[in-house]
Amino acid sequence: MDDTRIWTAGIVVIGDEILSGRTQDKNVSQIGLWLNLQGIRLKEVRVVADDMGAIAEAVTTIAGRYDYCFTTGGIGPTHDDITVDAIAAAFGLGVEIHPRARAILEAYYETRGGVNEGRLRMARVPAGASLIENRISGAPGIRLNNVFILAGVPHIAGQMIDALTGTLEGGKPLLSATLGSWAPESEVADILRHAEKSHEGCQIGSYPFFREGRVGANFVIRSTEPDRLDRCAADLAADLAGVGFETVPGGI
Amino acid sequence: MDDTRIWTAGIVVIGDEILSGRTQDKNVSQIGLWLNLQGIRLKEVRVVADDMGAIAEAVTTIAGRYDYCFTTGGIGPTHDDITVDAIAAAFGLGVEIHPRARAILEAYYETRGGVNEGRLRMARVPAGASLIENRISGAPGIRLNNVFILAGVPHIAGQMIDALTGTLEGGKPLLSATLGSWAPESEVADILRHAEKSHEGCQIGSYPFFREGRVGANFVIRSTEPDRLDRCAADLAADLAGVGFETVPGGI
Repeated sequence: MDDTRIWTAGIVVIGDEILSGRTQDKNVSQIGLWLNLQGIRLKEVRVVADDMGAIAEAVTTIAGRYDYCFTTGGIGPTHDDITVDAIAAAFGLGVEIHPRARAILEAYYETRGGVNEGRLRMARVPAGASLIENRISGAPGIRLNNVFILAGVPHIAGQMIDALTGTLEGGKPLLSATLGSWAPESEVADILRHAEKSHEGCQIGSYPFFREGRVGANFVIRSTEPDRLDRCAADLAADLAGVGFETVPGGI
Repeated sequence: MDDTRIWTAGIVVIGDEILSGRTQDKNVSQIGLWLNLQGIRLKEVRVVADDMGAIAEAVTTIAGRYDYCFTTGGIGPTHDDITVDAIAAAFGLGVEIHPRARAILEAYYETRGGVNEGRLRMARVPAGASLIENRISGAPGIRLNNVFILAGVPHIAGQMIDALTGTLEGGKPLLSATLGSWAPESEVADILRHAEKSHEGCQIGSYPFFREGRVGANFVIRSTEPDRLDRCAADLAADLAGVGFETVPGGI
């Protein structure tokens, strides 16, 4: 394995309800955290409407640009669930009923009124795709080459990525260390810049907050190398203490 | 005014902290809700890393494709705040200190230790840009043609869009009505499809949930026409009641 190879991913969030502001997306953060544990960097997210053309454009771009493309939303039983059709069309594929998906749905709905036309929609996949199972709702996710089609409901999407844990090739996870401080970031900008420049392979992000009537910031150091990360965090803490700002490991 | 014209917008969320999953974005939903009140449809969101090329590509695409482009994040005083530089470079512009931004910062920091180099970074704008003021932190947002550069901290971004309320041309707001029901969406998919087809100018979204051990869904009807919206909601409620599912106006 080439251990300098960086594996990348993008997410396409599909849903008018996110764009309308009505629903707060929770999938980006849960998939982002999970990808990091797989050694895969989330590089880009696009949120698009329930629209065939918009979905197709975003998925083909993200799947072509990164190692993995994840989509969330639009795979339920109702008329506004068009993700499968849009992705199949985007790649010039037909749509078929997946026999195992049908069997899963028939078993799941056996005691819940049986499979009807709406429910059978959830067994439709782009031709040649495989399934990503989930234990909650019966309806599976779908894998088509490097495209992973997940549910929009966060706890079902979470089950689907759990099922994928350890199955995707990745590189070294990006490690992070957080130092919290009641320092206004505008007073320590030079120190942060210096710490980043003098520690190769480390990036430092500064995330200000206003709490209890005071300003502060969490400084997040990221690196794939644990030794470098530790050295950078220790040096930054010492530099900040030198100008009177104590830091709290783990953040405030 | 052409009252059939649909005004559109996109958002570019800038920040490694969102992609890492560490921070939950809250700006998309607040800007989405606000845009709707301005009669502007949010059509697309992109989340990109703190990277000059990624920011430039997203902003030029979104600004070219929609009437308005909003960005959040990356306008603070630290080394990882590169939004202004990236957007200026994307449009072939230089970066300059805006005299009014400098005056605002000097007044704000007069009792807070004065303006230093880091703080003065927050007065930098793409050449020719104007300011979007905010009352909280001193540091203003920036308007460059149809691009609105906002803070990443949600309550500061919120102040900046408040300052823009009523200043952007828009069309008719998209109205919505929500009907909640303990109906599994897979049992009423046909009813939803029929209701949407038989009410021109109305879209219906179905958003399932699992609560108190039961499944249900909220059905959201959207239209720019209040009469059509009311008729569609009334007909859908009657159709659902006809198969035994009572609905709760406003949602569950």
